[in-house]
Amino acid sequence: MSLDELINDYYPAIENALIQTVAITNDIGLEELHSMMAYHLGWLGEGAGPSATGKRIRPILVLLTTQAAGGKWQNALPAAASVELIHNFSLIHDDLPCMDDDDLRRGKPTLHKVYGDGIAVLAGDALYALAFEVIARSGSPEVLEEIANATGTFGMIGGQVADVLAEGKEITPGEVEYIHSHKTGSLIASCLTSGARLGDATDEELDNVRVFGSRVGLAFQIVDDILDEVGEVETLGKTPGADKSRGKNTYPKIHGLESSIDIALDLIEQAKNGLVLPGRETNILLSLADFVVHRVT
Amino acid sequence: MSLDELINDYYPAIENALIQTVAITNDIGLEELHSMMAYHLGWLGEGAGPSATGKRIRPILVLLTTQAAGGKWQNALPAAASVELIHNFSLIHDDLPCMDDDDLRRGKPTLHKVYGDGIAVLAGDALYALAFEVIARSGSPEVLEEIANATGTFGMIGGQVADVLAEGKEITPGEVEYIHSHKTGSLIASCLTSGARLGDATDEELDNVRVFGSRVGLAFQIVDDILDEVGEVETLGKTPGADKSRGKNTYPKIHGLESSIDIALDLIEQAKNGLVLPGRETNILLSLADFVVHRVT
Repeated sequence: MSLDELINDYYPAIENALIQTVAITNDIGLEELHSMMAYHLGWLGEGAGPSATGKRIRPILVLLTTQAAGGKWQNALPAAASVELIHNFSLIHDDLPCMDDDDLRRGKPTLHKVYGDGIAVLAGDALYALAFEVIARSGSPEVLEEIANATGTFGMIGGQVADVLAEGKEITPGEVEYIHSHKTGSLIASCLTSGARLGDATDEELDNVRVFGSRVGLAFQIVDDILDEVGEVETLGKTPGADKSRGKNTYPKIHGLESSIDIALDLIEQAKNGLVLPGRETNILLSLADFVVHRVT
Repeated sequence: MSLDELINDYYPAIENALIQTVAITNDIGLEELHSMMAYHLGWLGEGAGPSATGKRIRPILVLLTTQAAGGKWQNALPAAASVELIHNFSLIHDDLPCMDDDDLRRGKPTLHKVYGDGIAVLAGDALYALAFEVIARSGSPEVLEEIANATGTFGMIGGQVADVLAEGKEITPGEVEYIHSHKTGSLIASCLTSGARLGDATDEELDNVRVFGSRVGLAFQIVDDILDEVGEVETLGKTPGADKSRGKNTYPKIHGLESSIDIALDLIEQAKNGLVLPGRETNILLSLADFVVHRVT
């Protein structure tokens, strides 16, 4: 089965798991809150549909890794929904005027532009809470701890804080690597380790998959930096050049555009060469690694 | 042992559990982030000390209930730290200019006044993530699900959203009860149910404690509303009258001051009369219920 075919299989299952989680309720206030979530997740409002949902790449990573580790991907759907909710929580907060101040996300006005800043803070918080509820119900405390750790102060949020604090300052290549590995790489690596755990991988396999995920995750963020520099609003779904105008520390800023592409390609090569899961089917994971950089090559 | 003596026992253990969790690290950016957390939790900066930490009433509730249910309170310290982190995450976000826009918290400038709004959003997010890490490590998925549910869209955050959406509007007594029960009551009730679970309470005891917690939690928020109307900045540690100037829907606004006090007293009576844990020592929980309303009587 090709990557595209698998994604075609997974996508509706992921959307279904997400919809079950973000079910509309008739409680006071909640109807509106869950409509906001649905708007942000690409199901409601003008432009709703697959182009507004994003590719759901993080949940797909969870499901692919579960399958590669020998498990049933269907069992990993709660964890898959959870990482997508977390990703979206972080986007809502990132887009706020007091953070990146973005007006467009996936081709639509950002949540705070439509509903106000205070509500956007709370809607983000609510998605984060839902993410933990979903994994807690799925009954794997190890996966839960992994995802909490990868998204919190020692992972994604810690990276975002370092990113905000470094805005407009000169930083070293080591520092930008730290920021990117944490703000983007940690969650992506935890998608792979969570999937592997749910497929009952051994500790050795978990370590191997974690390194693979960290490399792919870092490459993913470098590619995002590159697209911010060379992309068009139509394909990006957001305003390009935003990083530069905010004085963000990106790979192109520190290494130049050409070198950044080389670094991303090199990381993907290292990731693929380092992926060793004897007796497991890894082709799809390898294709996925390529897919991450093909957006710019 | 009196309530005061127990609190004197618990307080240092809670502070210690919190300090272990919010340990300062030397990672890039994290040193600053964890200093911010330490500032907000009352350990750093001008005015640091017990008056700046708050009373830690939520963790104390967890520990008291664990003990009342026959467990060792020491085992409940991770859950106790967790609910306090969640409470503080919600305070940081509530104080933001796009929410309640408060300049003072526990007698000190609010976090965003010192470090900026973007960082305050992230510091709140990071505390929420830490809270889940702590409970995940403590290995009780039931407690985790309970706390996630009580703080998320069907609990605290759902209540806050309803609160923000109702600002400046006329709402019914039923609606303000919904808002208060959720934004404040849910977390307090989950402190009691978490404590009871960790003390191996029966399902029947859990249900009983949940009702007790909901009533005490609602009374607690009504008392907060009253204090916002009649309190002084020195004892409150924040600016009184803020609810009125924002057009918040409070009990005094809807029921009048005198009736609000009666409603709170009545809820505490109902809570105490309804608490039935045969063979358990409940005196301390009863004193704690009284303590909640004694702030205004």
